Amino acid sequence: MTQTQIPHADLVGQSAGAVRAAIRAGRYDRHTAGLAPGHLQCNLAILPEAYALDFLRFCLRNPKPCPIVGVSDTGNPMLPTLGRDIDIRTDVPRYRVFRDGALAEEVTDISDIWRDDLVTVALGCSFTFENALVANGIPVRHIERDLTVPMFRTSLPLVPAGRFSGEMVVTMRPIAKNRVEDAYRISAAFPQAHGAPIGQGDPAAIGIADLDAPDWGDAVEVAAGEVPVYWACGVTPQNVLLAANLPLCITHAPGHMLIADVAEDAETTVLPPGG
Amino acid sequence: MTQTQIPHADLVGQSAGAVRAAIRAGRYDRHTAGLAPGHLQCNLAILPEAYALDFLRFCLRNPKPCPIVGVSDTGNPMLPTLGRDIDIRTDVPRYRVFRDGALAEEVTDISDIWRDDLVTVALGCSFTFENALVANGIPVRHIERDLTVPMFRTSLPLVPAGRFSGEMVVTMRPIAKNRVEDAYRISAAFPQAHGAPIGQGDPAAIGIADLDAPDWGDAVEVAAGEVPVYWACGVTPQNVLLAANLPLCITHAPGHMLIADVAEDAETTVLPPGG
Repeated sequence: MTQTQIPHADLVGQSAGAVRAAIRAGRYDRHTAGLAPGHLQCNLAILPEAYALDFLRFCLRNPKPCPIVGVSDTGNPMLPTLGRDIDIRTDVPRYRVFRDGALAEEVTDISDIWRDDLVTVALGCSFTFENALVANGIPVRHIERDLTVPMFRTSLPLVPAGRFSGEMVVTMRPIAKNRVEDAYRISAAFPQAHGAPIGQGDPAAIGIADLDAPDWGDAVEVAAGEVPVYWACGVTPQNVLLAANLPLCITHAPGHMLIADVAEDAETTVLPPGG
Repeated sequence: MTQTQIPHADLVGQSAGAVRAAIRAGRYDRHTAGLAPGHLQCNLAILPEAYALDFLRFCLRNPKPCPIVGVSDTGNPMLPTLGRDIDIRTDVPRYRVFRDGALAEEVTDISDIWRDDLVTVALGCSFTFENALVANGIPVRHIERDLTVPMFRTSLPLVPAGRFSGEMVVTMRPIAKNRVEDAYRISAAFPQAHGAPIGQGDPAAIGIADLDAPDWGDAVEVAAGEVPVYWACGVTPQNVLLAANLPLCITHAPGHMLIADVAEDAETTVLPPGG
């Protein structure tokens, strides 16, 4: 299991399939930011079929934090609508395995945990619109500083489904006042990746006590002339899954995403049959 | 059951809630085109929970013909994410009830058929982007002629899920050559309503033998200087449901849609909690 690791820098510029092959071979187990640019990266939720209908309903009712970009057949580890030969048991750099609502282990392969009743749900992630912001000349501070985006619990209620409920988690990016409208417009074009912000300005208005004390990730300063802008965050479904106390549930480790063959600006996240 | 019917013209200009109230009271059982303009109208599929997970997977894999805009809890006839006090048993003008894959009856109320294991799936419909085309000065011929849009079976394969599979059904609208690009751009803004066209031009390329002989609806001429443009159609999921031979399945009658409170240009089709 301790294969020689390929450095992140050596994978930059490789195709999505080549990156997944390195991951599958056990030769890359680190974060996927900046890899296979232009391709959709996905948050993961793998759970028993008994809970899958309610979880899909939950995601469909909360599409901004939980944009569904793919769903597997029960017991089938392949995700053909997201890419050629994606095997969800091996093609993600790092997984978290939760049992009865508690973290049981972090692993780089779930082949030995896979069961015939598991369903994979892939959800969009913020890498997609961040790339678009940067490409449009709107800097993203945590990327510039090589930090993890600050994430905050809010008081914004989610629409429940079955045992899945809770409050939205958001990310915060400081944006120059004169670019806030552009940031809304640009990210709104990516509904499969959280879409437009859910709000801006006063953190207390959405139940955030202190922007300098994120619940996850690293604090970043909001400079003079900037506004804190809030986007729905993919940690939301992870939180909700944990609170639901499922006997078994597997997610990606934060930042260690599934890289799809689907282009991040494709009209839908489904590859055409045979495509 | 034979209440005095309110004429269509008298409901034009009424709110979505007022139109649904007339329908619920048994005072309107005709088509919903042109009613509650600006509000999302929905195709309906009501089916036993045992098939709901596969049907949601099918729709998620075929988002252009089957854009999910709402899904109920099992056994609960209310759809709070689509509107205030929507009761799916009474608030649609006309339903079709299918048993074992065959039409059993057409009714205006399904209260006596409702079961504790039924799940409602609401899907977007083409009224939404047609309104946007017309508002942008692109005439829609079947509307001008007071006809039903022509619909065609195609050879375009759908991505299967469980017992749900088949080929896409499309609608055809003739568009002036110099407006085709605009028609793509305008309808692409409504992914909850079939989005951009799936193709244009040669009908044979997608398996349509004769544009003058639609499988459903009325033929409309393609004039000189016009191109036939094809959009994914909400008859697709109805067809697929029929072919799946479910013991029970209920749809709206064609043209007799559920009218939601959600605005047709809203970023998501989910009303905020309490909204």
